[in-house]
This record gives sequence, C-alpha cells and structure tokens, in this order.
Amino acid sequence: MPDRVHNFCAGPCTLPLSLLEEVRDEFVNFKDQGMSLIEMSHRAKAYDEVHQGAMQLALSVFGAPDDFGVMFIQGGATLQFAMIPMNLLGEGRRAGYVNSGSWGKGAITDATPHGDIYTAWDGAGSGYARMPGSDEIEILADTRYLHVTSNETIGGIRMVEWPDAGVPLVADMSSDYMSRAIPWDKFDIVYGGVQKNLGPAGMSIVFIRKSILENTNRDLARYLRYDVHHDKESLFNTPPMFTIYLVGKVLGWMKDKGGLGVIEQEAAQKAALLYDAIDSSGGYYSSPVETACRSHMNVVFRLRDEDLEKKFLAESDAAGLVNLKGHRSVGGCRASIYNAMPESSVRVLADFMSEFRRANG
Amino acid sequence: MPDRVHNFCAGPCTLPLSLLEEVRDEFVNFKDQGMSLIEMSHRAKAYDEVHQGAMQLALSVFGAPDDFGVMFIQGGATLQFAMIPMNLLGEGRRAGYVNSGSWGKGAITDATPHGDIYTAWDGAGSGYARMPGSDEIEILADTRYLHVTSNETIGGIRMVEWPDAGVPLVADMSSDYMSRAIPWDKFDIVYGGVQKNLGPAGMSIVFIRKSILENTNRDLARYLRYDVHHDKESLFNTPPMFTIYLVGKVLGWMKDKGGLGVIEQEAAQKAALLYDAIDSSGGYYSSPVETACRSHMNVVFRLRDEDLEKKFLAESDAAGLVNLKGHRSVGGCRASIYNAMPESSVRVLADFMSEFRRANG
Repeated sequence: MPDRVHNFCAGPCTLPLSLLEEVRDEFVNFKDQGMSLIEMSHRAKAYDEVHQGAMQLALSVFGAPDDFGVMFIQGGATLQFAMIPMNLLGEGRRAGYVNSGSWGKGAITDATPHGDIYTAWDGAGSGYARMPGSDEIEILADTRYLHVTSNETIGGIRMVEWPDAGVPLVADMSSDYMSRAIPWDKFDIVYGGVQKNLGPAGMSIVFIRKSILENTNRDLARYLRYDVHHDKESLFNTPPMFTIYLVGKVLGWMKDKGGLGVIEQEAAQKAALLYDAIDSSGGYYSSPVETACRSHMNVVFRLRDEDLEKKFLAESDAAGLVNLKGHRSVGGCRASIYNAMPESSVRVLADFMSEFRRANG
Repeated sequence: MPDRVHNFCAGPCTLPLSLLEEVRDEFVNFKDQGMSLIEMSHRAKAYDEVHQGAMQLALSVFGAPDDFGVMFIQGGATLQFAMIPMNLLGEGRRAGYVNSGSWGKGAITDATPHGDIYTAWDGAGSGYARMPGSDEIEILADTRYLHVTSNETIGGIRMVEWPDAGVPLVADMSSDYMSRAIPWDKFDIVYGGVQKNLGPAGMSIVFIRKSILENTNRDLARYLRYDVHHDKESLFNTPPMFTIYLVGKVLGWMKDKGGLGVIEQEAAQKAALLYDAIDSSGGYYSSPVETACRSHMNVVFRLRDEDLEKKFLAESDAAGLVNLKGHRSVGGCRASIYNAMPESSVRVLADFMSEFRRANG
C-alpha cells in the first residue's frame, strides 16, 4: 500500500495530512505539559485554550451570527435525532420532517417516540433522486419546526434552496457541514456529526438560536438538555477532548485557507470535475440523481452493469483510489470528496475514470 | 516542565507511556493502510479488528460471564444516568438509588425525569464518609433495580461489600472500573466512563445481562436503546473509533500485566503506600473518610489548614507531582492513582509527603 492513498470514504474520511503530522508530533507531550492531551484534566488551562478556541472557530468559520451559540455533544447526529424533539416539542406542538433519503428517514424514526412528528414531504415516490421545492412541503398547524437534511450521503443529493416553510428550520448538515454559507435567519438549530468534514468520529456540533433556550424542555436528564450544554460551554461532563482538539485544528486549517467562501468554491470545483467526467462519458457513467440536486460532497454514479462496476472498483482500489464503493443499500459507486479531499486527488480519479472507459469501452 | 510528570489527575489521567508512544508511531499511517485510523471507515476491515478486539478484551479482562454483553456508547456515564431508567423502568416499576456522594446524587438527578426513582440510602447525613451496609438500604415493593456507585471520585470512598438487596444491582463504576473482580451474579448492568482507568474521554462501556434485553423499552430513539447498541455490536452509528482503539490497547496492556488479579493487587498496594503515609504522620495528614471504605483509586487527605495545603500543592506541583488539588466542592488534597499510575510515582508522592512534613512540621 502507498504511504498515503486517495481516500474517498463517505465518513470517517480524509483529513489534512499536515494536521495528522502535527498531532503525531505533539501527541506524547502536549505543549510541554509533561503529559498527552488525552491524559489532561478537562479543567486544565492547556485544554481550556483548545476547547474555547475550537468553539470560537466553529462560530466564526461558519459565520454564525451573535444570536447563535455552539455546543459539542457526543453521540453523533443520531443522538440529536432524539434530543431535538425532546427539547423543542411541548404539549400541542408538532414537527414536520422532510424525508429525503436514508438520513431524513432516520431522523423521522428516532423523533417519533419523542414527539408528534409528521412527514412534510416524502421523496420515496421519486426514488430519493431530488430535494423538494418549498411549494411541495406541507406544513400543518402548530408546527414548531421543519426538519431537513442538507445533504443525503447515500443518495448523493443536496438541498440547494432552503425551504420557505413559515416555521424555523432544523437542519442535519452532517455530510456537507461547513462546506457552504447558509442563511442563518431561517434556522433555529443546525447540527451534524463531525466525522466527515471536520474531524474524527465521536461528536456532533450543534448551533442553536440562543433565544429558544428559554423555552427548551428542562424535564430531562441533564445530558439531554440543550440549556445545560450551552450554559456549561460543553463542559457539563468530560467532553471528547481529542476529537475537539482535532476539530479545532481542522477549523483553523479552514480559516487559514481563506474560510468558508474558499471551501465552498473548492467544493464546487471538485464536484464539477467528477460530474464532467460522468456527463462527458456518453452514458458510460451515469448519475441517478437530478442534475439540480447533485451533491458537492458525495458523487454517486453507476456503470453499465454490476460486473463492470466490480472491475472498476477493483482496479481503482489497486491504483490507490480507495473506498469508491457505493453504500450497500444502493450499490454502484460513490466518491466522497469532503473539505479535506485535495483537488489533486479528485483529478487523479477523473483521469482514472477516463482511462478506464477507454480501456473497457 | 519535565518530559513526563507524575499526573494524579482525577480524570482524564495518566495512561501507559508505552501505549502513547505506540499511538504516536502508527498515527499517520495505520497498519500500512495509507491513512490514519481516524480517517478510516468504521466498516473497514482494519478498523473492525480493532473494534471487535476491544469488545472481546473488555469482556475477558473484566471476567464477564457468557450471559453478559458489552456495548460502547458515547456520552460518558452521564448519558447512562438517563438511559438506564429509560430502558429498564416500565409501568409500575421503580428503582432505588444509593446516594453515596456527588456521582450517586447525579445519577438520581438524571434518572428522576425518566422514571419512578427513590433514594434507598442517603449518605448526606454522615457527610458521605462511608458506604451503606446491606441492612441500611431500604428497598420498596416493585423495585426493578438498585443503583449504586462503586467508588465516589470526589469523596474518596468505595463500596467494599456489594449490597444484598434482593433486586438486581446497576452499578456506575466509572472511577474504579476494571480495577477489581466483581460478583457478576448480583448485577444486571455495570457501566462507567472510560476516561479514568481505561482510555481517553468520550465513551462509556456498558456491560448488560443479555436476558434483560428482551424486556428493555423499544419506544425510544435508537441511540437510546440498549437492544439496538447490543444487536449492532456498538456499530449502530459511527463509533468513537480513536477512543475504542486506545481502550483496546489499555485492555491489552492490562492482560499482558497478568489481568484483573494483578491490577487489583497493585491498586491495593499503591493505595496502602499513601494511606500509610497519612496514618503514620501523627495527624499531620488526615483522611476524612471511614477506614473501611477508603478508595483504592482516589486518596483524599487534608492538612492542618488551608494555607499549609496551598503550600503543599505548590511545592508538590513544582516537584512534578501534579493535579493533587482536591475537587473544588470539598477542597483539600486528592491523589488519583488509577490503573496506569506506576507504583514508582506513588512512592515519589509518599516520599514527598514525608519530606514535606519534616520540612513544615
């Protein structure tokens, strides 16, 4: 195996090599403290700088306005599927959910035991090949929020226009987190697991409109309460320190690159390289999703038949282009090109796709 | 600061130096995969070996019998405070809790919104200086389980005799996890955060009697369901891979040392060194807890007055004996000597205590 492969995994996935080397070099003795960061009290000054730094960078890199706070919570986006209705839905309030694919469906499944939940738009009929327009989303009376998934990792579609729903949006952005600017005024909560664009697995970042914290549910265990995590600055209990430390590094790297605008532009360019390779192949490669909704993070594509797909996957893997297999539930191929995926690696894949087509025409 | 201090932190805390060096050396390119472990799919073969290996070691090192399963769940012991009543308490069932200190009290606070909870013994009256005898614990009718805290990190007491309560025990063992053999037949659930004895922060390990999974509550979001975590072998969603990887290493290190028996003996020896330093000081150092309940993990002690304690803490810190300050809620001094704390470091502390007494008699 080469020292460094091109890793197109859907998550966890590629992180900037320079940061991995930094972590290695400071792992055993962190900042001359005579111990590793992972051996340090979460109340230690050296850790507190890491912690507060990562929180501030999360807010600033994503351009969150002053009326938003940020929380680091364990359990991934999946625990948020439960916490959102638990915290936001009181007596007589309900929530609409957009079912845009595997993750939208998961959010509905997990919210249902904890609140009055309905499906405001269902993409099942269209094979989850697109996102809804605002006029297709049905909002019932007494709806507290509309839950959307900004990018479906498995289906390979993204929400380009955010719905005008007349109620606050709550968005799971796990798989295109901090890869584009968003209109904050539409949202009450923006959340996502960090293990795709932002760091190692083991945490979600939750942005919350501070004014809604006055009315979130208090009749819950403290770990499940947003007001507790927010008041305690994500130090209510021992936080996942190593993950936070690395997320802080990735956010600093994003800032140094030029911030969200540059990241967004790069994402569009990287995605275009692969969609061009598909569209210019005369049908050799095909995309199962509607053009307007194509994800900039997860480029899914098919070849003529499964045998050819198998060959494609075996040969790309041998060429150091790994983890291109589509999710087991849908098959085919998928190239995940998150923030830390270098454009040079995407070019290697685009070239490989052309080469493979020529050799197996 | 020396390259390596003696770190008596209450958690997170000292891990074996040899393992930190191993992690450093394999951090950027894990097992010739061309990527870091933290960039790897949680479904990858190389990770799966780490994951399954850690689960098997957890069961075998702790000596769990065949009718127990093990789960890795994010959110620390604190999320378990919620999950336990959510999963175990149905209509007409309640749970008794032993309030033995800060952690026992926390467990009660967090369980109360999620079930019919009562205090079966309250240590507040005795200043949390001891654990209860079985005959002091009051069990009401329809009690599903009795919750106990095996070791109070802040108070510095431990449960030496496990109660005969006539109902299954559920035990939070966070601060003396896998430091001694336990009578498994008394327990339905044994759980704890890993960030003291077993690895970096960001996860709890939950041992559960498999037969009770048939009756745990299904009307919950999936992340909150024990049956889901167990069925999916802690891969229901992306697990905290780096933490699991390191916990696996620590468990392997424990096994290589000779297993739980050796660890238990070492813990007793290390604790005896410090309690001897206290008891032989003619009252210069004093222990606020009852002798029979002294913790083998968190040795708390006081000096004559706060000024002298400040001097002790400043001078010990300067000598590379760090994090000896007691918890802010109780003051004084505390030496946490978890599994990975070398006996040699404990001896350095015991010698320092004698020296300090001579110099400040």
